[in-house]
Amino acid sequence: MDLKDRRTIRRYAERPVSDELLRNLLSLACRASNTGNMQTYSVIVTRSEEKKRALAPAHFNQPMVTEAPVVLTFCADFNRFSTWCEQRQAVPGYDNFQSFVGAAIDAIIVAQTFAVAAEREGLGLCYLGTTTYNAGQIIDVLHLPRLVVPVTTLTVGYPAEMPEMQDRLPLDAIIHNEVYEPFSADVINKLYAAKEALPDTAKFIAENGKQTLAQVFTDVRYTRENNEYFSKVLLDVLRKQGYLK
Amino acid sequence: MDLKDRRTIRRYAERPVSDELLRNLLSLACRASNTGNMQTYSVIVTRSEEKKRALAPAHFNQPMVTEAPVVLTFCADFNRFSTWCEQRQAVPGYDNFQSFVGAAIDAIIVAQTFAVAAEREGLGLCYLGTTTYNAGQIIDVLHLPRLVVPVTTLTVGYPAEMPEMQDRLPLDAIIHNEVYEPFSADVINKLYAAKEALPDTAKFIAENGKQTLAQVFTDVRYTRENNEYFSKVLLDVLRKQGYLK
Repeated sequence: MDLKDRRTIRRYAERPVSDELLRNLLSLACRASNTGNMQTYSVIVTRSEEKKRALAPAHFNQPMVTEAPVVLTFCADFNRFSTWCEQRQAVPGYDNFQSFVGAAIDAIIVAQTFAVAAEREGLGLCYLGTTTYNAGQIIDVLHLPRLVVPVTTLTVGYPAEMPEMQDRLPLDAIIHNEVYEPFSADVINKLYAAKEALPDTAKFIAENGKQTLAQVFTDVRYTRENNEYFSKVLLDVLRKQGYLK
Repeated sequence: MDLKDRRTIRRYAERPVSDELLRNLLSLACRASNTGNMQTYSVIVTRSEEKKRALAPAHFNQPMVTEAPVVLTFCADFNRFSTWCEQRQAVPGYDNFQSFVGAAIDAIIVAQTFAVAAEREGLGLCYLGTTTYNAGQIIDVLHLPRLVVPVTTLTVGYPAEMPEMQDRLPLDAIIHNEVYEPFSADVINKLYAAKEALPDTAKFIAENGKQTLAQVFTDVRYTRENNEYFSKVLLDVLRKQGYLK
């Protein structure tokens, strides 16, 4: 799939993903830019049934985790770099929030570079945003040490489905020239008109017993209560892994 | 440039980057995966001399900011989405850390998808990691409202240089199978041997008056003092922009 017609793939064929292909794609992904060429990221490759089953609850048992041939967990990782420093008469100072953010950004860049390269090879992928919700459980399952925090997960396999492409907002919702121009009510109406007119929108609203699509997000899918709970949990994970000294 | 032989480009030709190409590439970038299809990101396009000069100090006056034809600031943005919610009888609950992290991840995914697509078209790019250091200054220059935080910046133009490709660690430094296996001192030595043997490494060590390459990082380039200072600054920015309720 090329960028222009890609879609998220949640159902996978039996066809295995070879180690050689996976390593080639991850090598390509590591060619992406990174901060100071420190490469402060790691990728945990899960292929075993045992570990997939152990990871599944952290991803709210979404079936892709156990059904995909490969699950990749991308981590911010200042552990390896700090270990290297300590072995080289250097005193690392990376147990802080800015270091986490930098390492997390670089881990995401690797993940997305992998995604583009993998889709180009005919693989199908799904990002699991649950990774930052239940990072603590993932840390336990994958034995992640201090200064290693999972930031995203990709399930990987050959597609066994080809879903419709998802809609996107008009580009004018996304880009601002020179300065950020807040949107008037009229402009918001225009930018969201096509999305709100989709047949799926009416379906989601009805299924969830709501009056607007926005209410499906605020009251059902991404609620304040959950966001606040998982914010506290994630900050605790960062503290426990040594990134909020 | 294809992924396999890409390099960061810091010097740009006079040749302009057309609005049409830029919009096409940003549209492609928005095809990337995002959380719940909320598209909680924005991109600020800087072309004016005035704004480039105003942004430059936030990026420690790296010359790419004023010399590139285009500077793109990628932002985590729950402002637009929350405004839409409020106009649709929905009460948004995105003024928290988890929402910031999710939006930041999606902004980085868009940035890197743009980067891959742009390099494929012959453009050259440089990421500016300074974005999270001086996010507060960037917020002022670009007039970013509540719930909009810049997370990375790309300078964009046609290449006027073709630097050597940078080294990367062996893939075995990056990937772990099934569980994270901490590295022994011997393995660290092996993984870093090629990097430490590079001619540039000896040069950096000598130029900085240090004994090891690691000391160049810990004592000069990414010091504890700076990391801790900019951690505090970034947490203050997140609070001010409404993401740490």
